[in-house]
Order: sequence, then structure tokens, then C-alpha cells
Amino acid sequence: MPIDFEHSAKTKAVTDRTAAVIAEHILPVEDEFGGDIDAAGGDEARVKLQQSARDAGVFAPHAPQEFGGLGLNMCDRAPVFEAAGYSLFGPLALNIAAPDEGNMHLLAHVASPAQKDRYLRPLVGGQVRSAFAMTEPAPGAGSDPSMLTTSAHRSGSGWCLTGRKHFITGADGAGFFIVMARTSGAPGDRGGATMFLVDGEERGVHVGRHIATMDHSMVGGHCEVEFSDVRLTDDDVLGEVDEGFRYAQVRLGPARMTHVMRWLGAARRAHDVAAAHVAGREGFGGRLADLGMIQNMLADNEIDLAATRALLLRACWELDRGHAASAETSIAKTFGAEAINRIVDRSMQMCGGLGVSDDLPIARIAREVRAFRIYDGPSEVHRWSLSKKAVRKIRDTALTSS
Amino acid sequence: MPIDFEHSAKTKAVTDRTAAVIAEHILPVEDEFGGDIDAAGGDEARVKLQQSARDAGVFAPHAPQEFGGLGLNMCDRAPVFEAAGYSLFGPLALNIAAPDEGNMHLLAHVASPAQKDRYLRPLVGGQVRSAFAMTEPAPGAGSDPSMLTTSAHRSGSGWCLTGRKHFITGADGAGFFIVMARTSGAPGDRGGATMFLVDGEERGVHVGRHIATMDHSMVGGHCEVEFSDVRLTDDDVLGEVDEGFRYAQVRLGPARMTHVMRWLGAARRAHDVAAAHVAGREGFGGRLADLGMIQNMLADNEIDLAATRALLLRACWELDRGHAASAETSIAKTFGAEAINRIVDRSMQMCGGLGVSDDLPIARIAREVRAFRIYDGPSEVHRWSLSKKAVRKIRDTALTSS
Amino acid sequence: MPIDFEHSAKTKAVTDRTAAVIAEHILPVEDEFGGDIDAAGGDEARVKLQQSARDAGVFAPHAPQEFGGLGLNMCDRAPVFEAAGYSLFGPLALNIAAPDEGNMHLLAHVASPAQKDRYLRPLVGGQVRSAFAMTEPAPGAGSDPSMLTTSAHRSGSGWCLTGRKHFITGADGAGFFIVMARTSGAPGDRGGATMFLVDGEERGVHVGRHIATMDHSMVGGHCEVEFSDVRLTDDDVLGEVDEGFRYAQVRLGPARMTHVMRWLGAARRAHDVAAAHVAGREGFGGRLADLGMIQNMLADNEIDLAATRALLLRACWELDRGHAASAETSIAKTFGAEAINRIVDRSMQMCGGLGVSDDLPIARIAREVRAFRIYDGPSEVHRWSLSKKAVRKIRDTALTSS
Amino acid sequence: MPIDFEHSAKTKAVTDRTAAVIAEHILPVEDEFGGDIDAAGGDEARVKLQQSARDAGVFAPHAPQEFGGLGLNMCDRAPVFEAAGYSLFGPLALNIAAPDEGNMHLLAHVASPAQKDRYLRPLVGGQVRSAFAMTEPAPGAGSDPSMLTTSAHRSGSGWCLTGRKHFITGADGAGFFIVMARTSGAPGDRGGATMFLVDGEERGVHVGRHIATMDHSMVGGHCEVEFSDVRLTDDDVLGEVDEGFRYAQVRLGPARMTHVMRWLGAARRAHDVAAAHVAGREGFGGRLADLGMIQNMLADNEIDLAATRALLLRACWELDRGHAASAETSIAKTFGAEAINRIVDRSMQMCGGLGVSDDLPIARIAREVRAFRIYDGPSEVHRWSLSKKAVRKIRDTALTSS
Repeated sequence: MPIDFEHSAKTKAVTDRTAAVIAEHILPVEDEFGGDIDAAGGDEARVKLQQSARDAGVFAPHAPQEFGGLGLNMCDRAPVFEAAGYSLFGPLALNIAAPDEGNMHLLAHVASPAQKDRYLRPLVGGQVRSAFAMTEPAPGAGSDPSMLTTSAHRSGSGWCLTGRKHFITGADGAGFFIVMARTSGAPGDRGGATMFLVDGEERGVHVGRHIATMDHSMVGGHCEVEFSDVRLTDDDVLGEVDEGFRYAQVRLGPARMTHVMRWLGAARRAHDVAAAHVAGREGFGGRLADLGMIQNMLADNEIDLAATRALLLRACWELDRGHAASAETSIAKTFGAEAINRIVDRSMQMCGGLGVSDDLPIARIAREVRAFRIYDGPSEVHRWSLSKKAVRKIRDTALTSS
Repeated sequence: MPIDFEHSAKTKAVTDRTAAVIAEHILPVEDEFGGDIDAAGGDEARVKLQQSARDAGVFAPHAPQEFGGLGLNMCDRAPVFEAAGYSLFGPLALNIAAPDEGNMHLLAHVASPAQKDRYLRPLVGGQVRSAFAMTEPAPGAGSDPSMLTTSAHRSGSGWCLTGRKHFITGADGAGFFIVMARTSGAPGDRGGATMFLVDGEERGVHVGRHIATMDHSMVGGHCEVEFSDVRLTDDDVLGEVDEGFRYAQVRLGPARMTHVMRWLGAARRAHDVAAAHVAGREGFGGRLADLGMIQNMLADNEIDLAATRALLLRACWELDRGHAASAETSIAKTFGAEAINRIVDRSMQMCGGLGVSDDLPIARIAREVRAFRIYDGPSEVHRWSLSKKAVRKIRDTALTSS
Repeated sequence: MPIDFEHSAKTKAVTDRTAAVIAEHILPVEDEFGGDIDAAGGDEARVKLQQSARDAGVFAPHAPQEFGGLGLNMCDRAPVFEAAGYSLFGPLALNIAAPDEGNMHLLAHVASPAQKDRYLRPLVGGQVRSAFAMTEPAPGAGSDPSMLTTSAHRSGSGWCLTGRKHFITGADGAGFFIVMARTSGAPGDRGGATMFLVDGEERGVHVGRHIATMDHSMVGGHCEVEFSDVRLTDDDVLGEVDEGFRYAQVRLGPARMTHVMRWLGAARRAHDVAAAHVAGREGFGGRLADLGMIQNMLADNEIDLAATRALLLRACWELDRGHAASAETSIAKTFGAEAINRIVDRSMQMCGGLGVSDDLPIARIAREVRAFRIYDGPSEVHRWSLSKKAVRKIRDTALTSS
Repeated sequence: MPIDFEHSAKTKAVTDRTAAVIAEHILPVEDEFGGDIDAAGGDEARVKLQQSARDAGVFAPHAPQEFGGLGLNMCDRAPVFEAAGYSLFGPLALNIAAPDEGNMHLLAHVASPAQKDRYLRPLVGGQVRSAFAMTEPAPGAGSDPSMLTTSAHRSGSGWCLTGRKHFITGADGAGFFIVMARTSGAPGDRGGATMFLVDGEERGVHVGRHIATMDHSMVGGHCEVEFSDVRLTDDDVLGEVDEGFRYAQVRLGPARMTHVMRWLGAARRAHDVAAAHVAGREGFGGRLADLGMIQNMLADNEIDLAATRALLLRACWELDRGHAASAETSIAKTFGAEAINRIVDRSMQMCGGLGVSDDLPIARIAREVRAFRIYDGPSEVHRWSLSKKAVRKIRDTALTSS
């Protein structure tokens, strides 16, 4: 039957179990340590949190069933990931945190059977963590990937990889890296890039300083990483040579959407905290929740939550049908990132002084979500891309009709 | 299969036929008369425009098949009505313009078989027009329906109806009115209201002046109407006595959504005109479409179109399942009305001086859509209602979990 | 004493007299004819309205005293023009409407004594109207003046002027035109432009159709004008040859500010009407003015009015000191135009259905002010210019400090 | 001469000297310690920073000259405080940080000569710090001061003070407190409050935990403080009994404005950092500063900086004339707080990943300024107050004109 917004019974069940384990086992840990995963114990905390999710039967819900996951498609992931994102530690607990989650998705689609056994299986199982090494310090690849400077060249029967990366999330302690390196062309033109699987223990891999940022919920930091003459074989090539930019899209479209799902959960928590606050507080002759300006903010939050969810599901449906869905994911990501920040900001405002304090979780949620308007493509880059498509569409229509 | 955004083949076909008849037969008339239906000939123009839609097999697509319509449900209507709304005269042509469209919906759900034969059948067929008489001059019912002053009291075996209404769209020339009148309680409390079917020729019905407003695309104006001791029988009661407020919701939820559909089409036309303009114009050393600030506006339009469509479809799906969907329709209406106005405003800005002139259709679209942020519940009233639901939800959650 | 925001006693007196004549003699005419100057009688109405202002001693307050004006500088004009702008017909009444007001300013600064006697004196006196012919249909000069195509070339001892203009406000019935024409370089480079004074009766001057636009308060329409081999002498050159772009700035900086002043008055009227409406209406259990969402809009209006006024005065002060004040006028114009539109939009929203009707003046004010975000430089062009200055400033700071 | 925006030579000189000492001596310390005053050494750091300002002759520029300050009025303070605010540690260095700066202002206006000698003199000199104890945990005084619960009652010839406060900035280590306590009426009505001067060493004063908040630049934390039967004499009453709410206004109006001044400096730094970043970076085929979407943000920053400065100066001028300037300070505070947050947010966005990292100062500036939309009256409370004035004004006009 056409048009249906109803999730399957299985998805609903996983969502409910996720919400329950988050409320019972994950939120208390987040709240105790103020959302700082290092303070909570870093990798050790991760192991414990993941055990809770495993016990609840909601571990790695997105991963292929043959590798130990629940095999949910993109549409199914939406409510589950949102439920997990309700706690800043939730995604880690379910093993659906960035960058591992996106890396699993990429490996599942592009890796060879041998690579899947070696890298995907332990990643799904939570035995190792991973990192995705793409962004570089200026003048390298940032928002504009064509500026990629890290390069790999043929060396005997293998490859020699050299370059500097930064803001590499989860690098410290990562079992392996997926590294984007130029294999043809020169920085500034697009040329060809190739993805390499690089073991974290490999000679020539140097994880440098953690770049301190506003967020604190991710294990392994946002690091500088240097690759110095790292020797690799053809078996370390992920997919085909020179197809890296295309695979990046395979990873990025869904990864953007799962980010939206997770942060949507965090935004919902901020909203719930604020709604409870204004429902319970008095001032100006009545309940805060009955003041028109507060009602304005509550309603705008409801609207932003609903719109983000609607755009997200639409993009997921396109992805599940095998479409690139570049416009749909750009729209859902851009709107979602901005809406999520608005929701959290309004929630903070509604809570007054408490809102900016660590006595409520809103201030830390605000710190975590801000960067989402920048990473996975800044809003400006998505808008640029959307505008180009809009003009192309008009041109095509004009050509057709004339 | 759960989650599906694909429209049925039938719906797609109706949508395509609608787009075609709009482009070929309706837009030229709109453009010739600058979107002013009175200038185009008023009711006579309506008859001709409707013949085009009839010939294309897309007339009254929403009406029950037994009364001559195509029987599309709410989800199916969305793309069809949007395609019709691409011209300001499109809804009239398809016989899906306000207020007739909402009145057909209401009659189909509430009227007795006899009433359907007498009122619904000719309305679906385009033989008559109708009006919905609810809003009143101060201090009567406006945004706050509880202030209803028009009243009907028992008089012998029938009723005697008295009161003043204003902003009654389509009143001039209407074959009949659906009149909301108080039958119990007093203005300011909710009490009970009843809907009456009143023939336009009935003694005591006086259609007064047309209140001039920004929009010009609706036949029959926005009029003052006075009902002076109009004598009615029990057969003229629509549904049950004192159930009028409830029926108003039956009408209003879907009516809000069909408004969004139609205006979304108009907004899309404004966007298309602007995109074509900036794609074809040079300035500042290049094509306008390649300037970042223009790209910003194009992209924001794409985002607003997509988000409105997504929220709309979601609300329609709830309505099709028989839910009141009060929150979903409030969200889609509020977001949609504001987004539509933003889209049209940006489109105007992109076209510069031409944008505010009548050489392009954008200025007249801007005039038509502005009121949509006010009628069918101003944004503020929907936000007020949404905030109350948000607080209730939090309260219920708190009660459940404690 | 440094820092003073107090206007002189003279300015206050002129402001008060202006407010009085507007309330007593001008608003009633505007309201009677719904702000449509053509409906009110066009040029004949102008003559009557101007007599009222003359009788009140507030006619041509900005013009040099030697030519019959009151000699107010830019800072002094601010409150007077705002008071005049409170009615859409007010600027016409005081002879400070665009484009005459800006033309007087330009002539006072650039014209020769003979030109002042011939053109400025009757213009100040209200005996003639004038037009400023700069913008051209594509691909000519619009937002980007370097695309100027109208040109004048030497022909014997004089000049021969040829070109097409459009959106020339007040052209129909104008006693004379100030025409911007290229006298060196080619469209697309800047080259040199010259301003010519062209009598409206001159052979080769053809005023074409009125381009219908959203606004209706200006005498003489927004016209297409064609100049076909118009013969001119050196005495018809305004200022120096090839200095036209520079003079345009002399005109545009102050003209932008006087636009802000006038529209600020109109916005204030919309706000006053809305404030009075919500103060007098009941709904939702109390006075509309006591609802938080209404209070939000009232307060935002107050903020926007104050911020526009503050930026305006600052820019005027710079202009009065003889500075080009390009950044200051861009800021005041861009912020002001957008703020004025926001104020009027909120005022409309507060008045509900009445707000979009002609029963209140807000809808017509909305139609008049929309174009101000486009003419005198669209917001986008001002932002582009401001950003370039911001970057230059940073570069200079960096150079200085290193 | 009426209307002047020019600062005096003295003010300009103090501003220049301030900018110099900030650049040379204060910014390096801020940058070394990431804007965390505790990390920098807390009170010891303060002493050193203040010595730099003293050496530069810009210490306590706002304090009365007889007590060792420079005696600048509100208008003069604006550029000086903005220059100081360019570093997060600048206000501390100049001894113009909250809450000391506002307390000095209050004491200068209300304290007796003996109180000035005992409290004001060492405060101006930087020998002690102070705190202002007004806000209370729920259900006490927050945004609504009428809910004040801390109370003082007559006890013999003196007073006995009891109550709990929270978010008391600078409490830890404060030499004295200015405490707001109810001396008549009951929580919920306005009644009367009195200000008491309470020595930090006084028996019954307990400074509790530091409430962790987003900001880190203030010495002495935001603390919980308990006053348990603190014994006070009539000499400890600041001003008159029951006049506390009125004095709070004396403090709050100017304190709001000096907050705007300081944060405006911080916002300007964020903007400068971003402008330098985009001027020096390449991407998408050119300099980032030449991309339209970046230019949009740069220009909006310039507009917001200018508008904040303009509204601020206007309010200061009213205060300097001895007016309460309640509307003017509400407008400048509300607009300023929101504009400052927008500026910092756009600056962060322009810097991409670096913007959210601690490698640039923008992220920490963002953390510091967020609360300004909440403290000193949340935007919502100011808007509520502004709307009430707007309606009163309209009512008065209506009464006058009828």
C-alpha cells in the first residue's frame, strides 16, 4: 500500500528496548560523569556500557546479521538511534557512535570478504574501535575534498602512504584507520583518491595531540595523525583504486543521517528537561509553562523535532531504495543540524540560570551538538550543492518544455 | 511493508494530468488577468476553467466517487493539489478551492443522505458554490471560537437563526451556507454550537460588502453576512445539535492540510520563476545563480519545500488512518504557512525590481499567501495548542514513570 | 560636549508641526483613497496636499533656504521625515518624496548656479516633478551599475544620448530627468558615466508604459523610458563628464537614509495601529495585549524601531560631517529595510484577518515597504560591499601590527 | 551643538591605551590558559593582570576620581569597556568585571560616606572583591524578583538576616556581599526589600559549592551562599530600608549596559579572528572570504556590531542624563545579548572545525556569552516589560488625542 509511516513491530520492539536500557543503565552513567567519557573511564567505560546494550539485545542494531548485528535498514535505524541518542553515551553503548558506525556501513558495502573478516567483524563486536582519516590541516582537504594532499604512490608491488590529518575522531586507541589518500591528480583538481585500511599498529602511523573541542562524549578524541611512509599492500586497498571520492559518498550520505538520528535524541532530551522544568516552576503569577513566550519556545521545539524527523525518514527511505539521495540527505542534514541546535538553545533559555549550569544536562548537550552544523559538510556546503541542483533542475525543465 | 513514500500509480497519473492541464489551460488565464478572478470574469471564468479540468479527467479529485469525484484520500490529494496550486486559478479549476473543498469534505462525513443529495452533489459537480460562515466581527468568534455570538433558538418545531458574520469567503453568489451558531451556553464559555445548512436564497440572509483584502484569486469575495431571524427546520441541522465545535474540527484538520497543498504549489511556482531568473541573468561578473547569497536563498527554498511536503504527508497519513491528528496538522499548517511565505519572499528578492512588479507572478503570489499565516488558526494559536500538548505529554510521562 | 542625541529646538518644532499636519490633513486623504495616489487624483492631489504642508510651515524642510527650503541637515531630517512618513502621502505633501527629494539633494551639491535656477528652484517649490533615470532592463544596469548601456557620445559641440531605462519612478509627468549615461568604457567594466539634465519635453524622450508594482503611493508611476538620439549641450551636463558614478554616491548615500526615515514612519504607524488593536480586543480569556506571543511581537517591534533609528542617526551624523559614510549608510539601509518589513509583518499578524484587509492601513503599508529591501541596492549588494570592507579592515590591521 | 557621536579626546586616549595593554599584556595570558581564570591562578592572576592595567593608567576607569578611578560616565565607558572586553580577562584587569563594577556603581550612588570609605575605596583599588547576593533557588527570586524569600527582621537595635542564595558570582573569596533581603511583605507580592552590606567574614555567612556553568572567566565562581541568622546593625543598611528594589534598578540599568560593552568586545574579537581566517584560507576555487555565504556572515556581523553599539550609546546617554532609561536599557540589553551570540556563532561557523576547537578563542567566547541572554533579565522578561510600555504609550496617546 502506498505511503506508510508505520514502523514494523520488530523496529518498535528494538526502539522500546533501547529506550529502556538508556533510561536504566546509560543515562545514570552520563549524568554521573557530566557526559565526559574520559572522566567516565574512556575505553573501559565503553566496554561496560556496551555490555548493557548487549544484555538488552540492542547491540549493533545496524550491522549485518551475519556479522552479529540486527540488520536494520536506514528507516528502521531512525527511531532506534534516536532512542539511543537520548543519552550522550547511548550511541557508544549500542556501538552506533561515529565514526565506527559509519565505518561499519562503509565496510559492509565496499570491503572484500577477507577485509570484512579482519576489520568489520571485530568492529561490530566492539572488540576494536576505528577511525576515518580524511580531513587535513590547511591547505589540505577540509570542506572542499578536492584539496586532498595526503597521497599514496606505488612502491614495488605495494603502496607508500604519506600525509597529515587532523580532527580524526577516535584516533587515539583506534584498531585501524580508513585513510583517504590521493592516488592521482593534484590538490585543487578532483583527480582520484583511494581508501586504504591501515592497522593502528602499523609502522609510520603517529597519533598526535588531541585537539580540544567543545564536545566530550567521544572516546579517542579528535586527533592529529601523521602517516609517514606507511607501507601497504593491494590487500589494504578498500574497494577500487581511485574510487575513494565515490565511496566517501557511500559513507557520508548514511553517516549524515545517523548523525541526525542520534543528535535528534539528544535534542529531545534537552526539550523534555526544559518542558518538565517549566511545567514545575512558578513565576510571574503562574506556572512558567503557561507564559506565552515559553509556549512559543515549546511549540517551536515540537515543530523542529517533527520536521527533522520527517525529513530524515524521507531521506532514509531513498537510501534504502539504493538511491544516492544526495539532495534528500543534504536537506535532512542541514535542516536537522540547525533545528537541533535551535531546540537545545531554546531548551536552555527556558531553564534560565540552571540551563547554563551543569546541574541540568542541557549545557553539555549544547556543547556536543554545535559542531554538527560544521562536520559532515558545513551547512554552507550543503546549501551550495542544493542550489546547484535546483538550477540544473530548472534548466532541464526549460529544455524539456521548449 | 512498513515506511513507504511512494504514491500509487493512479495518484501519479492524476498528478501528471493535473500538471499538464494547469500548464496548458490554467496558467495562461491566470497570467492574462494577473491572478484577479473578478477581472477574469468571476463565476463565468470559473465555469470555463472547470471545463478544462473536467476534460482532463481531474475534476473534483477529492470528492467521493459516488458523487462524481475521484475519491482520493488525503495522502493522494497532496501531490495533486500541489500541482493544481501551481496556478492561483488551479484549485478553482479542479473544484478544490476553499471553501468549497472543505465543505465537500465536511458534508461527505457528516451530512444525511438527503442533505448529500441536495447540497453535496451539485457542489461536487460545480453547479453551485458554497460558503462556511463561522468568523464574526468583534467581540464575536475569531481566533477564539468560544466567543461565538451568532445563535439559533428553538422556534416551534424549527429554529430561528440570528447573527452577524464577516470575512465569509465566497459568500457573494453562494448557493448555500454552512452556518455555525450557538445553541447553548454563552459567549466566552464553550457551550454548544450547531451547524446549519442555509440556502443562499433564504429569507433573512443578507450578503453585505466585500471586505477588500490582499488576495484576489477567490470567487465571491470575503463578505460581511447577516442572518436576521432566518427560519430553519430540523432537516437543516448538519449532524447533531450542539456538536458543531466537534464537526468544525472534522472540517478544519483536513482543510488546513489542503491549504498547505495548494499554497505549496504556488510557492513552488514562485521558486521556479526565481530559479529561472537567476539562471538566465548576468551581473557582478557572472551568472546570478552562481553568487553565494543567491545560492543561499535557492537552497533555503529547496529545504522549506521539502520540509513542508514531508510534514504535510505525515499529517495526511494520520488523517487517513482516522486520527484527529491535531498536533500533526497544527505542525504542518504552522510550519507550512511560514515556510511558504519565506519561499515566496526569497523568490521575490532574487528577482529584484521585477520581483515586486506584475511582470512576474511572484508579487501576486505573495499577496495571496500572506493571509495563510492568519486564517485556519493563526500561527500563534497553533503554537499555543502545541505547547499545551507538549506539557501534557511530559506530565503524563512523569506520572507513568514515577 | 561629546555624545549628544538631543535634537535642536528648531528641529523639534518642525517635527511637531509635521506630526500635526499629517494627523489633521494628510492621513484623512490617505485613508479615504486607500493610499492610492492615482485614485486620490494624482498630480492634482499632490498640489493640495503640498498646500497643507506649506500652510503648516513644513514644506521642503530639507532644501537649501536660499531656494525656499528650511535647510535641515541629515540629522535634523530624521525625525521630521519619520513624522511625514507616518502617512504614505506625507512625503509627497512635504515635497520630500522620492525621487524629487534625492534629486534636490544632488542638484544642491553638484549643479551649476544656472542649473539650480532652472531646475532646483521650481523643484523645491513644487512647481515641477523630476525623475532619476538610472536602472535599465537586462542586460543593462540594475544592482550592478557597471553594466550601464545607455550612452552619450559627442556630437558636434554637444551630446547625443541614447538608451532604454525602466522602473523610472515619477517619469510620467516629470518636468525633467537626471539621466545616467555611459561616456567612456563599455558595459561590464566600470568606465565613466555622466549625468545629464534632460527636459521632459525634449525631442527623443519617450515615456512608455507604467510597470505595475506592489506600491501605489507615488505620483508618476514606475515607467519605461526611452531616450532616442536626444540632443544635449554641455550646459546639460550635471557636474563633470565621466564623474557620474561618483555623483550617484553623493545622491545615493543620503537618499538611502531619507528612505529609511520615511518608511520608518510608515512602520511606526503600522505598529501603532496593531498596538491599539491588541490593547482593545479580548480573546482567550483576556486582553490580546496581555498574551505572551503578542507581547513578543510588540517588543520586537519596539526593538526594531529603536535600532533602525539609532543606526540611521549615526549614519546621518557621518554624512553631515562630510564623510561618504558608505559602510554606515549600507548598515542603516540594510538593517532598516529588513527591520521595517519585520515590523509591518508583525503588526499585520497581530491584527489577524483585519490585518490583511483594507479596513486597516497595514496591508497597504506592507505593499509599499516590500520593495525597499530591493531598491537603493538590494540587501545582498550591501552585504557584499560590507563584507569586502570588513576583510580589508582586517588585512590593514594585520599589516599595521606586523 | 545637537547630535554628536564623537567621543572626547580623553575617552579616546583611555580607549587606545586600553586596547594596547589588552593586546600586549592581557590577551597572551588569556590565550595561554584558554580563558580559564582558575587555571591562570585565580586571585593571584587577577592581581598581576590588574597591575598591567594600573601601569597603563587605565585602572578602574569608571570609578569616581576621589576614590581612585578615572571618573568616566556611561557614554565614555562604552568604548573603553569594549576595548577591555576584547580579552575575556580584560575586564578583570581593569577592575571593571561583574559583579564588582556594578557594585562600585551602586555604592557610589547609594552608600553613606562611611560605607564608601569602608567598602568602595578598597573595591576600587582592587584590594578586595565583592558579590551581589540577589538570586535564590526555587521558589525564591529568579527572573521574578517579587518572589524574594531571604528576609531580615528587626532584632534589638539591629537586624537578623536569613536566607539562601545561588548563582552568586564571585562569592568565593569575596570581601563583602551586598545582600537583597525582604523586610516587608511576603514572597509573591512586591512588598519591600532592603540591601545590606555584609562582611564576608561575618558569622553565619556560608559560601557553598561552586555551581559549574559554561563560563570560566570569572574569579570566585558562581556559588551557593547561605546566610544563617547573620547579625547586622543599621550602619549595614545600604541606603534606606524597604528601598532595595529601587536601588536594584540603580544598579541594574547601568550594569546591563556595561555587560553589553564588555561582551561586545569579546564578540568583536571572535569576528576579527573569523575575518582573518577566511581572508587567509583557500577553498572552492578561491579565497573563503570571497564566497557569498561567507560574505553574508561577515556583513551580518558588521551590522550586529554596529546596531549593538548604536543602541548601547543611546541608552548610556539617557542614563548619563539621570534618566531611568528602563526601555532604552531593556532594548540595548536584549538586542545586544542576542546580537553578540549571533556574531560569535557566525564567527565559529566561518572557521569550520577550528571554530569549535580550542585552537582558536571563539569556542570559549561562545561559552562565556551564552548566559548573557539569561542573566540581568532574560530576553523574555525584557520583552514582556517592553510590550507593557508599548501598550501604555498607545493608551496614553489615545487618551490625549480624544
